[in-house]
Amino acid sequence: MSAPTVTYRETVAAFGTAGGQLTVGGVPVERLAQRVGATPFFAYDRALITRRVQLLRENLPQQVQLSYAVKANPMPAVVQHLATLVDSLDVASALEMGTALDTPMPPSRVSFAGPGKTEAEILQAVAAGVTLEMESATEARRVVRAGERLGVRPRAAIRVNPDFQIKGSGMRMGGGPQQFGVDVEQVPALLAELAAADVELLGFHVFAGSQNLSAEILAEAQRRTVDLVLSLAGRTPWPVRYVNLGGGFGIPYFDKDSPLDLPAVGANLADLMTERLEPNLPDARVVLELGRYLVGEAGVYVTRVVDRKVSRGRTYLVVDGGLHHQLAASGNFGQVIRRNYPLAVANRMDEAPGEEVTVVGCLCTPLDLLGDKVLLPPAEVGDLVAIFQAGAYGLTASPTAFLGHPHPAEVLV
Amino acid sequence: MSAPTVTYRETVAAFGTAGGQLTVGGVPVERLAQRVGATPFFAYDRALITRRVQLLRENLPQQVQLSYAVKANPMPAVVQHLATLVDSLDVASALEMGTALDTPMPPSRVSFAGPGKTEAEILQAVAAGVTLEMESATEARRVVRAGERLGVRPRAAIRVNPDFQIKGSGMRMGGGPQQFGVDVEQVPALLAELAAADVELLGFHVFAGSQNLSAEILAEAQRRTVDLVLSLAGRTPWPVRYVNLGGGFGIPYFDKDSPLDLPAVGANLADLMTERLEPNLPDARVVLELGRYLVGEAGVYVTRVVDRKVSRGRTYLVVDGGLHHQLAASGNFGQVIRRNYPLAVANRMDEAPGEEVTVVGCLCTPLDLLGDKVLLPPAEVGDLVAIFQAGAYGLTASPTAFLGHPHPAEVLV
Repeated sequence: MSAPTVTYRETVAAFGTAGGQLTVGGVPVERLAQRVGATPFFAYDRALITRRVQLLRENLPQQVQLSYAVKANPMPAVVQHLATLVDSLDVASALEMGTALDTPMPPSRVSFAGPGKTEAEILQAVAAGVTLEMESATEARRVVRAGERLGVRPRAAIRVNPDFQIKGSGMRMGGGPQQFGVDVEQVPALLAELAAADVELLGFHVFAGSQNLSAEILAEAQRRTVDLVLSLAGRTPWPVRYVNLGGGFGIPYFDKDSPLDLPAVGANLADLMTERLEPNLPDARVVLELGRYLVGEAGVYVTRVVDRKVSRGRTYLVVDGGLHHQLAASGNFGQVIRRNYPLAVANRMDEAPGEEVTVVGCLCTPLDLLGDKVLLPPAEVGDLVAIFQAGAYGLTASPTAFLGHPHPAEVLV
Repeated sequence: MSAPTVTYRETVAAFGTAGGQLTVGGVPVERLAQRVGATPFFAYDRALITRRVQLLRENLPQQVQLSYAVKANPMPAVVQHLATLVDSLDVASALEMGTALDTPMPPSRVSFAGPGKTEAEILQAVAAGVTLEMESATEARRVVRAGERLGVRPRAAIRVNPDFQIKGSGMRMGGGPQQFGVDVEQVPALLAELAAADVELLGFHVFAGSQNLSAEILAEAQRRTVDLVLSLAGRTPWPVRYVNLGGGFGIPYFDKDSPLDLPAVGANLADLMTERLEPNLPDARVVLELGRYLVGEAGVYVTRVVDRKVSRGRTYLVVDGGLHHQLAASGNFGQVIRRNYPLAVANRMDEAPGEEVTVVGCLCTPLDLLGDKVLLPPAEVGDLVAIFQAGAYGLTASPTAFLGHPHPAEVLV
């Protein structure tokens, strides 16, 4: 039985409440449901996203630029909002690229990363003038050919698979054998191959892992990344103008998670900037690429109780949403052990937890479990359940067509 | 390192090959890719679906009717095809109901199951004249109200949560506390409540679990289900006209899986029909509800190799598909331990396995793993990789919007 946690209390405080209701963007959640016209829906808080970018600006050295990884939440309104706040956008597909190009962000400040980019996608990206983060020699050759075909000089960087691994990440994406990037030891050969090619090589991208809550581990990864980039910079015939240090900043999801110590990460980055990067790579734009950290805590998934039943001593709240919209909260996407995401009865925020219930979605599968034995205020049919930490990898990372229920709305408030 | 398995060989033989290529519906897979116009895509073999229904008809007693659980594969062409082969269709949402009603199947042979049905969905279902499988007292009251409001007598059955559990299922959906159905011990009270209501109560649905490969366990579950239904039938003032025994027939996915012993399941069902059901419930339509078993083995997911790279001794094939289309094959949907789905280089079916490769999708996440260290014929960029057992819970059970790649086509050949 899990009582409300630190994560939960801080999250609720960030959104705020009014008259016993959770608010998003200052709007009480039941009124928001009426405005949307249906449940379930995702609601993202514009001010919380703004505040998160401000927090980063306050804690990170001002020379470090911020890139938003659109994949975390590609809702066009969210991307438009972030385009006014950050320095660049990173995309992982032609569709995401289109969303990014529709913002005021100049194409030169859009990067396109990801393994398995097709020839068609690379042609689109070169035509758009975005920066291609090349993940292999094959991709590099495709970029060169696309430039020749279009008569456009491609802008490109090399994504490097480092020779170190970082611990404590939700997902490790660097070190050892990887589908991501070019192994650091293969980079000199690729640089030699590209020396005569008509391509504007800007620099390097190193991304070691995601969803890390340890400032110490992130600092260590950043130090080793800088070492690696400086060693590669010695091999390039051109000045390095772009260094993407990756991101990997985690957000707390569960009971025992502590938020990332951002001042500590910032202090380490300040040292790296002044002692290593600025002296050695004076022309380089140094970028942190963040997705989940910018938007994850700014979103809630709101769903309505459609049934309440007691089966053999256990009380179930059946809601009109489910894993088809918020798969991660069901524990079925990348998690080894299922744990409850923080959740609340969003129209009873003033009431004390009074009963243990199991919150399940409306799908005909036992996988559709949103809250296992959680302590909540007694809830009835018609009440609203809010699942927090739903701003990143929520809707687009979920099987929306599963069982054919309606697509949920998304609102930025 | 996994060599091709029994599952793999039998599956390939069922589809067939021609000129070194896998065929689907008799069409070589590269020609099919050209017909579709793009990779990746899902291809379902019409004849394999027909043959599977025939196999069931040959092995099950003829009095047992077959219902297709549309959720397993709701592609309209697949549902149209199955509507000509089976006796009824089961749906889990208003959208699936619409697909079913668009077939020649009469509405009275469509059932609508699933927890958390909304008032709006229940109104639609009563208006359509389908059979509502009521999962709770709340739903039963909604059904009665919908009938009163529409002036239509609702057709309904009670989904019962049994007092036994079956072992060996991929997912247990009956026994103990459940969000599914009405606990058997609560059924008499519900029957009493509904005695005066204007609703046509047809019978009972008991579904204990899915994806079971043991004939013995399925037979035991069916015996206990029949016991349970007969005990409930003694409490109804009306003759039982509908008994849905559930399904749960599994298909082999992995190396050590053996196909279900269908003759053994059939023999047990024949005994139950002649000794228990026909003597005691002469008016009852007895139904087996199957989804995965009808379509799962009739589908392949076809994706093209876009990159081949060697990273620190490991060879990767990067394909243009991934977990956004076939999440189950990545091991991220309901599985505790990730295992490889059977796969092949679909245009090199005559070539011997010659190298160990890791097949990954095009998404920027380490979760996008389709084949971990599999033994395949050496493959190049442009080759086609087919992932088998993709006919059920494939596309619709996957996060298609993840990272914004194009939606794959589906074809029934």
